[in-house]
Amino acid sequence: MIILGIDPGLRTTGFGVIEKQGSKLRYIASGTIKTGSDGALPPRLKVILNGIGEVVRTYQPDCAAIEKVFVNVNPQSTLLLGQARGAAITALVGSDLSVAEYTALQVKQAVVGTGKAAKEQVQDMVSRLLMLPGLPGSDAADALGVAICHANSYDALALIQSLAPSLGGLRMKRGRLV
Amino acid sequence: MIILGIDPGLRTTGFGVIEKQGSKLRYIASGTIKTGSDGALPPRLKVILNGIGEVVRTYQPDCAAIEKVFVNVNPQSTLLLGQARGAAITALVGSDLSVAEYTALQVKQAVVGTGKAAKEQVQDMVSRLLMLPGLPGSDAADALGVAICHANSYDALALIQSLAPSLGGLRMKRGRLV
Repeated sequence: MIILGIDPGLRTTGFGVIEKQGSKLRYIASGTIKTGSDGALPPRLKVILNGIGEVVRTYQPDCAAIEKVFVNVNPQSTLLLGQARGAAITALVGSDLSVAEYTALQVKQAVVGTGKAAKEQVQDMVSRLLMLPGLPGSDAADALGVAICHANSYDALALIQSLAPSLGGLRMKRGRLV
Repeated sequence: MIILGIDPGLRTTGFGVIEKQGSKLRYIASGTIKTGSDGALPPRLKVILNGIGEVVRTYQPDCAAIEKVFVNVNPQSTLLLGQARGAAITALVGSDLSVAEYTALQVKQAVVGTGKAAKEQVQDMVSRLLMLPGLPGSDAADALGVAICHANSYDALALIQSLAPSLGGLRMKRGRLV
């Protein structure tokens, strides 16, 4: 299963592609989509749309995951980040990919083992887990972290779903047991 | 020239299609794209993407305009609205449409003549300007208002651009004289 992870941003959107073979993870690709630092919003969102489209065409992922973003102290920044994330999700669903969402906390817990990890620890652990020859850039590392988080959650979800009949008819609904 | 106006929102995205023939405006269509009031964000943004895609395929607009949104007192609402607007813009640029942006103030000034107009005044004036048999719904009226605003601005921009050589080499850049 090939997983595409996305770390959304207006200036820089990170992407990371990994393959999950059983419990093993293999690095395929990572990088950033940059829209520059100014200009009208619509053409910048088009850069994100086209960039993600190219990544999807090139690496043919089976599913996607994207980091949830938080409200910024600056409401205008929140609005811009929201629009960039909306463009990234739209590009993914437009490519008929299912899109899972994880908070930065969940990604850090999955990659480093603690939600309090610093950016450098995420980069370091992503590099170790995927046996990279060097440290990935911060945005690409976050995107790879989201993909790793999804790969782990996928197993947990599948396990819970396989156990569900013996759990007295519990079912999964939007990632929760109901 | 056929203009598609969009009033973005997560629950309800309004659309309005008008034709500009010289200085005359003709109503073509309007309506709303609804995503329901709950559920995960990615499938909801897909509803917006597919809805706008269908409007574009049906009415073949030459250009699009979308209302600028403001930061909400609730930062989480700002984030959600931003993502919905990002999805709408992405759907438009993905259909190779140029996308102009106008504030609610600019739309009200264009439609009612004052930026302080109430929602009902916008509905009423949109209905009169386009000779509709009744009042359009609020979201559709706002979307038609954005389209009317763009139709008017288009003339003003074209006039300024035609005059630019005699204005000592002034040029338009992102809607401003430079």
